[in-house]
Amino acid sequence: MTVTIRDVARASGVHVSTVSRTFSAPHLVNAETRTRVLAVADDLGYRPNRAARALTTGKTHNLGLIVADIANPFFSSLIKAAQAQARLRDYHVFVADTDEDPQVEEELIQAFAKQVDGVLLCSPRLTNKTIERLGEEVPLVVVNRRVKGMPTVLMDVGRGAGLALEHLVALGHRRIALVTGPSGSWTSKEMQTAAATSEADVVFLGPNPPTALGGLSAVTDVLASGATGVLAYNDLVAIGLMEGLAERGTEVPRDLSVIGVDDIVTGRLGSPRLTTIAMPTAAAGRMAVDLLLHSVDAEGAPGVTTLETSLVVRESTGEARR
Amino acid sequence: MTVTIRDVARASGVHVSTVSRTFSAPHLVNAETRTRVLAVADDLGYRPNRAARALTTGKTHNLGLIVADIANPFFSSLIKAAQAQARLRDYHVFVADTDEDPQVEEELIQAFAKQVDGVLLCSPRLTNKTIERLGEEVPLVVVNRRVKGMPTVLMDVGRGAGLALEHLVALGHRRIALVTGPSGSWTSKEMQTAAATSEADVVFLGPNPPTALGGLSAVTDVLASGATGVLAYNDLVAIGLMEGLAERGTEVPRDLSVIGVDDIVTGRLGSPRLTTIAMPTAAAGRMAVDLLLHSVDAEGAPGVTTLETSLVVRESTGEARR
Repeated sequence: MTVTIRDVARASGVHVSTVSRTFSAPHLVNAETRTRVLAVADDLGYRPNRAARALTTGKTHNLGLIVADIANPFFSSLIKAAQAQARLRDYHVFVADTDEDPQVEEELIQAFAKQVDGVLLCSPRLTNKTIERLGEEVPLVVVNRRVKGMPTVLMDVGRGAGLALEHLVALGHRRIALVTGPSGSWTSKEMQTAAATSEADVVFLGPNPPTALGGLSAVTDVLASGATGVLAYNDLVAIGLMEGLAERGTEVPRDLSVIGVDDIVTGRLGSPRLTTIAMPTAAAGRMAVDLLLHSVDAEGAPGVTTLETSLVVRESTGEARR
Repeated sequence: MTVTIRDVARASGVHVSTVSRTFSAPHLVNAETRTRVLAVADDLGYRPNRAARALTTGKTHNLGLIVADIANPFFSSLIKAAQAQARLRDYHVFVADTDEDPQVEEELIQAFAKQVDGVLLCSPRLTNKTIERLGEEVPLVVVNRRVKGMPTVLMDVGRGAGLALEHLVALGHRRIALVTGPSGSWTSKEMQTAAATSEADVVFLGPNPPTALGGLSAVTDVLASGATGVLAYNDLVAIGLMEGLAERGTEVPRDLSVIGVDDIVTGRLGSPRLTTIAMPTAAAGRMAVDLLLHSVDAEGAPGVTTLETSLVVRESTGEARR
């Protein structure tokens, strides 16, 4: 009869996860407990299974998670969900912030490669080619970018942008400004693709930094564009834009309708409360961890998972001014 | 006379490098040997030299940074400044979030110990005793907690709380509620100490989770306290409290004045805009990195740096209702 990890746990008087950790991350187990568990395992003739044995060969039980801006609530929601999911599997998550810099992004992947078992790369700014090359150094799962042969989680922002534009068209808006994000952003490209099929006349303004400051500095171009409605790259850009519009005496939504993307809490608190595309950040964080641990623990075909987005109508959109 | 690593090696009957490894990478030392070396070190009163320890572990050029809640803008401001300062010195920063859980905090310090050259521990929830013990495993710099013999950066929240209470007293408030933070929080204790010397009659309500939800669930106690002014543990608590007050039809500042702590952007955007104690988070992040890299690169006396706070009066405070 095969001796299982449960038999060892019972005979040692410890939890199954402690036995698991004794083989996968012995330095995290109290020395006395470790000695007892190993002695019991020897006595019973327990052999950790293939996956567990792979873990003993240098697995750290840490995951890296790289984001473009740790201060953006879009990413902190994703981080919280990813670390909760990782903790269930006995992994810690280390987070690193690229400040939107592709060079820093590449350095961080390399720094993580030596310290963690795998990396979640969120909304990268690197080229696909570079990401593919870095995937040779450390297991990667990518969020919000399609990269060939790599496990991927996408949030369907193209569909969300379509809903936002339909909402504006239904309110009578004929000319709409799309305030785009940074170059290299997959999300920004998806939004532009969606805009190309809109009934409205959509003008693209950008690229812009994906921050409140980016929105603030787009105000002049937005006002000059003749648009009556705006779809911003994300909520931070929309919030910055609305601040700048208020300073110029342009009232939202009376004079101009504004829609953001993400559904961060800051947009819900401000005045007017922001109409936005809700992004499934928590689900994406959990899914990315599952894909990564799958690719870390066993060989599986890399998959692409696409998560739904939805329109949340609040106070920043209204009928087009005649 | 100072006890050296050589004295410990001689008395334990092992090589100097084994003593060194016992303190820098204990999982690499046989448990029996480790126990003997630690006992001898205790007997002789040996304190390992931080710099020597860093050198023996081999520099990774990575720093760990541990926060209680990565989603709180108080911490993201500190993180951004710390990573910018670290980057100037060619170090990467890996961030980890404890979700306010002391057990997770301890695990994360241990997980980092093997992967980074030193750790910045921000607003810890662990006991001082545990922090001192973990400081033997990896160089630590502590932010917002006094720990014996450890380099420390403090933000003078006691002085800030004093200014906040004086502001309320000047507006005619005689009974003030202090909505305290989590137990184990140094910041919360400092605020309580400051309140003890206030001219006003200050009631302590808590402990509370340091989140908007924590503030929301304090509403009933605040209303029952008979206070006309509130000093909240932080801005998130103040924002949650104001949301709850609005639901009960209590108007801020007409019926109740509210002050937060931190000066996060969310407080500046809401309505009414929040009066708060500005915390020097960016300066603290930079200073903590400087202290850590000093303690990593060279031996220096661990210092305590205290940074000033200030009162920012906005719209959530007004004259006490008669």
